[in-house]
Amino acid sequence: MITKKYRDMLAQKSAIRELFDYGRARAAEVGADNVFDYSLGNPSVPAPRAFNEALARLALSGRDIEVHGYSPSMGIPAVREAIAASLKRRFVLDYRAEHIFLTTGAAGALAHALRAVAAPGSEVVTVAPYFPEYGPYVAGAGCTLRVVPAQTADFQIDLAAMEAALSPKTAAVLLNSPNNPSGAIYSMETLVRLADMLEVKQREFGHAIYLISDEPYREILFAGQECPSPARFYANTLTCYSFSKSLSLPGERIGYVAVHPEAEDAELVAPVCAQISRGIGHNCPPSIIQLAVPEVLEETADLRVYETNKNILYPALRRMGFACVEPGGTFYLFPEAPDGDSEGLSRRAKEFDLLLVPGTSFGCPGNFRISFCIDTDKVERSLPAFQKLADSYFA
Amino acid sequence: MITKKYRDMLAQKSAIRELFDYGRARAAEVGADNVFDYSLGNPSVPAPRAFNEALARLALSGRDIEVHGYSPSMGIPAVREAIAASLKRRFVLDYRAEHIFLTTGAAGALAHALRAVAAPGSEVVTVAPYFPEYGPYVAGAGCTLRVVPAQTADFQIDLAAMEAALSPKTAAVLLNSPNNPSGAIYSMETLVRLADMLEVKQREFGHAIYLISDEPYREILFAGQECPSPARFYANTLTCYSFSKSLSLPGERIGYVAVHPEAEDAELVAPVCAQISRGIGHNCPPSIIQLAVPEVLEETADLRVYETNKNILYPALRRMGFACVEPGGTFYLFPEAPDGDSEGLSRRAKEFDLLLVPGTSFGCPGNFRISFCIDTDKVERSLPAFQKLADSYFA
Repeated sequence: MITKKYRDMLAQKSAIRELFDYGRARAAEVGADNVFDYSLGNPSVPAPRAFNEALARLALSGRDIEVHGYSPSMGIPAVREAIAASLKRRFVLDYRAEHIFLTTGAAGALAHALRAVAAPGSEVVTVAPYFPEYGPYVAGAGCTLRVVPAQTADFQIDLAAMEAALSPKTAAVLLNSPNNPSGAIYSMETLVRLADMLEVKQREFGHAIYLISDEPYREILFAGQECPSPARFYANTLTCYSFSKSLSLPGERIGYVAVHPEAEDAELVAPVCAQISRGIGHNCPPSIIQLAVPEVLEETADLRVYETNKNILYPALRRMGFACVEPGGTFYLFPEAPDGDSEGLSRRAKEFDLLLVPGTSFGCPGNFRISFCIDTDKVERSLPAFQKLADSYFA
Repeated sequence: MITKKYRDMLAQKSAIRELFDYGRARAAEVGADNVFDYSLGNPSVPAPRAFNEALARLALSGRDIEVHGYSPSMGIPAVREAIAASLKRRFVLDYRAEHIFLTTGAAGALAHALRAVAAPGSEVVTVAPYFPEYGPYVAGAGCTLRVVPAQTADFQIDLAAMEAALSPKTAAVLLNSPNNPSGAIYSMETLVRLADMLEVKQREFGHAIYLISDEPYREILFAGQECPSPARFYANTLTCYSFSKSLSLPGERIGYVAVHPEAEDAELVAPVCAQISRGIGHNCPPSIIQLAVPEVLEETADLRVYETNKNILYPALRRMGFACVEPGGTFYLFPEAPDGDSEGLSRRAKEFDLLLVPGTSFGCPGNFRISFCIDTDKVERSLPAFQKLADSYFA
């Protein structure tokens, strides 16, 4: 018999995926050019040329046994070393290969990091707005997700609410900065104060509280912005990274868990992740992709289009009357629904062939998400549709 | 705190992995040429040239958004269609794209298939000898593994023992043919009788018993052999496949679950697998590898070396006095330890720089595994070491 738990999940389909499917059907009716699909966070720029050249070179190298062979369960040693060296330079922390566990993107990184430090029955605390898949990730590890309500004025963390959410059952705090969907970057002040609080709570509870830092948007920063890494301020940090956004490789499934060198049991986390893999059928990211990544570790795809799009959309939305916090990075905007009903707004926007994701599944039902990783031309052509949406509220 | 369950697993390291590590250390001492490492099942032949050319072409195509983009959660539709069409032709069963779920190799396929049909608390029955990772796969799904003892005369299934192992708690039977480590191919007679028994038990228990058929060695068959597919005889079959062995791509993590078109809830299994993925951080095999596979669906790597090696080793071992069932396929031999103690034999073989895996972790402690996916030259040069091992027992 099909396992009931998963059969039941079929009934609760992802709102994002449903909008995307609607968009495809609508595009077949009115033409793809006329549907403004802001639903999916799928990078819209090519990968770095050096990456594709490295892939082709590896494929034709004749070194098939090495190129296509099994990866050791923690990842290919030279790749782990290259990543550790790069992080050491960038974060000024003493990362070594033993602290790096290679994963199939951020999803794989979070699945492993959560199981490594959060035993079934424990609690994981996150902050709204948050990526909806945190729900299944945390449930899959057998833990309970506790959500700190959004602080919608600037999308920094409401630290009093965070403190109230922490309990002796808290095994980990799960953060995402730059944030999907708000585009907010947690400030150094926020992170230092959070770290101080977690240190106190660790002593009070008598056990480690790990900070799982989900950082796939770390390199998508707008002019004048910096993204402080939580690992700089708190030793028990597991950094979960994906090359999906920075190198525009979402389908190739490559990322890592980087364990802070001074974390409790730092040297145990990667071997423990390798044990976790055995039960979930993970078995490492693809070898050829692992081998190509060191060639572009200090590069990114040409990410400028995201800032160009932000610089068109953000002021336009403000002019139209929408309240919106300016994002510091990512390719998301998270404005307020004027009447506080983002589900209604999403339905209404469809009438103008504008696909916008309600904030409900991000734990923030008064706001809606715009994923602006689409062509600039299309962003410009969508402005009249946004104007119609604004008029329907404000005119 | 590091989760205790996984920390404890670190203490019980894989015997295969330990032998492999020993072999690397020993090779550093005496030279790799002088260590006869028969421990790992890592293909030793290159991938088909057409596969590497397809990869390079995709990498340099300029179609980055398509080539490196997110895959839909069940796999890229055209790839699922191509695989279904190929299976339909080969198995003469009406597979359609909706029956195919793409996975990261057989490990990913088994992790999903088990969770899809075996709810936590239920039992999964397998037959010794069996791949040791079945233990973590089944435990990871929250189920109990019940093992039908080996029938060492010919390594077919002891059907009376199978019948005794089935109970109302049985959700699935997990089979591997051609078998790692015995090389046995379950005969049509075995499969027909098993299917009849499962049909009766399904009616008796009032629920489906799925047959999860793990088939990565399906294409590695020796002269005169055929491998009957269990799906031909039993409708509730989920075929788990990996291209690792047939295309020599173990590191690239590509395989599938193929649901028998007449299985109970056949159309539900792939969507349910996509839901399972959300909790275990799977998110599809790499896009570029998915896209390259249809170009070589009817091809294999040049697998002849495995038969060449078998034709050297098998008669030599018999001449030396070892009892051994002749394998029908795979790249494994599974002879008997003359005194029934395969752990002792493995230790003794190390003295001759011969790395052989004891059968203990395969549920068959009287036999030992020889993975002969190594160069033929090395197989020939290893015969004197095997002779010394034989002499230590028989001379």
